[in-house]
Amino acid sequence: MQGLTPSYKLSLISVVILLLGLTSGDVAHGRKKLVSSSDGEPCHKMTVYYHDILYDGTNTANATSAVAAQPTLLSRSVSVNDSYFGEVVVFNDVVTAGHELASEPVARAEGFYFYDNKESPSAWFAFSLVFNSTAHRGTLNLMGADIIAEKTRDISVVGGTGDFFMARGIATLRTDTFEGLYYFRLQMDIKLYECYV
Amino acid sequence: MQGLTPSYKLSLISVVILLLGLTSGDVAHGRKKLVSSSDGEPCHKMTVYYHDILYDGTNTANATSAVAAQPTLLSRSVSVNDSYFGEVVVFNDVVTAGHELASEPVARAEGFYFYDNKESPSAWFAFSLVFNSTAHRGTLNLMGADIIAEKTRDISVVGGTGDFFMARGIATLRTDTFEGLYYFRLQMDIKLYECYV
Amino acid sequence: MQGLTPSYKLSLISVVILLLGLTSGDVAHGRKKLVSSSDGEPCHKMTVYYHDILYDGTNTANATSAVAAQPTLLSRSVSVNDSYFGEVVVFNDVVTAGHELASEPVARAEGFYFYDNKESPSAWFAFSLVFNSTAHRGTLNLMGADIIAEKTRDISVVGGTGDFFMARGIATLRTDTFEGLYYFRLQMDIKLYECYV
Repeated sequence: MQGLTPSYKLSLISVVILLLGLTSGDVAHGRKKLVSSSDGEPCHKMTVYYHDILYDGTNTANATSAVAAQPTLLSRSVSVNDSYFGEVVVFNDVVTAGHELASEPVARAEGFYFYDNKESPSAWFAFSLVFNSTAHRGTLNLMGADIIAEKTRDISVVGGTGDFFMARGIATLRTDTFEGLYYFRLQMDIKLYECYV
Repeated sequence: MQGLTPSYKLSLISVVILLLGLTSGDVAHGRKKLVSSSDGEPCHKMTVYYHDILYDGTNTANATSAVAAQPTLLSRSVSVNDSYFGEVVVFNDVVTAGHELASEPVARAEGFYFYDNKESPSAWFAFSLVFNSTAHRGTLNLMGADIIAEKTRDISVVGGTGDFFMARGIATLRTDTFEGLYYFRLQMDIKLYECYV
Repeated sequence: MQGLTPSYKLSLISVVILLLGLTSGDVAHGRKKLVSSSDGEPCHKMTVYYHDILYDGTNTANATSAVAAQPTLLSRSVSVNDSYFGEVVVFNDVVTAGHELASEPVARAEGFYFYDNKESPSAWFAFSLVFNSTAHRGTLNLMGADIIAEKTRDISVVGGTGDFFMARGIATLRTDTFEGLYYFRLQMDIKLYECYV
């Protein structure tokens, strides 16, 4: 910047820092916090598949989830079949890169869901995606309503650890297949809008 | 800005951008992230009423919540009555704009609570407020301790979707009325301090 | 700043404001939001000890947690002992400043955990740390997978209230002692990376 006046130099520097600021959010010691927006691109995204294999009394080896609390008395008193109101399921499910259960495993989903609708199946989830591979190590923590009747529904990514340190975002769920109560698969489009990189 | 030197122009531009930054937080592609403070005004607030109508064995049509796990053996061994330690309730409750159950419905509260105090009733909540009206579409996800003995208690809004994309804040709970175990109403003052608009 | 040209003055001011921005994140009405990073220092940290004293049928006075849902049928069908898959425990545990249960109490931990692994004990937690002392008043809300087999494991601090208004961060858990199912102690290193101060 030879030949420029000092004030011009300072201005240039400040503009450069400002532009950095506008695209990258808060700058801190080592990592920077990136903030994107709902209209813009997530700072990180991935699509994974969640497989829930509920214990049916015989599939001990394959089952990855089990009923921790039976449907409530209210559920049984309602004439509608299969709402399962209040049934609580604890899971440690396989999460894969592709649709097939046999495709590359990318994480475990550890958490629980329960059914919470008298008339039609609807659920509420809270769980951690636990990554432990060469691609990713760390966890994402999620919670929200899985309104099964809607084609897609969004839940919140409320935090993360390891590679996903302090992440926040949205996971869009879609029922990919449904074979009665004992197997279903959700497509999860995970979009992080706050990342520390 | 005719007549100004180039450095002066740059400085003006940078100050303008800076001032924007100071009031609006992170600027991103489409939406901006607004950050307010505990002392300042929330970027969004609303007061709503949560009605819990527990199934009592007879109110099948009206009940919106039910016991998923009975009070624990510890609860029964404690001499204090009515602590219900460990009782888990799953709910899909009506949330209204006014005190009355018959007032305008604004959301459903889908989630669960459990009692967690041996001596006096106290609870812990995690749930989604599901909005599906012309006013709002989307969800807010909340969790925290509802220390019933205190006049007001704060829980966290940890995320949101749709109109409440990525929101964070505080909900202040107040017991508005309490009719034994089978009906209670909470006033919820929801204050969002991080909004994407 | 006598003798400086106007543009130089403006540049100096903008650089000063910029530097403020770089260290303090978003500035709002009253409180400022501080953002640190995983490599840098947390904006707040503390180490506390969580004591879980499970009701065993006789310790009514001392117990601070109890089984809300028994281990699932899947758990019993697996040949491995002691995985407790699906057992849900509700707790209102003492949190202390030192290792000893008799050391200074600093908070209550109110929430629940459940075991979620068929082969080896692993758990999932969601709870509030409720502070009510001269040092701190308010709550921190946490959730995440407690993969017991790992020496340390991180869960998310997803929100806070009172003195911990809107806080976010990480809690690193370490099994400090383990005396069968009925007493264990976790060291919790709580590191907040987003604080409003």
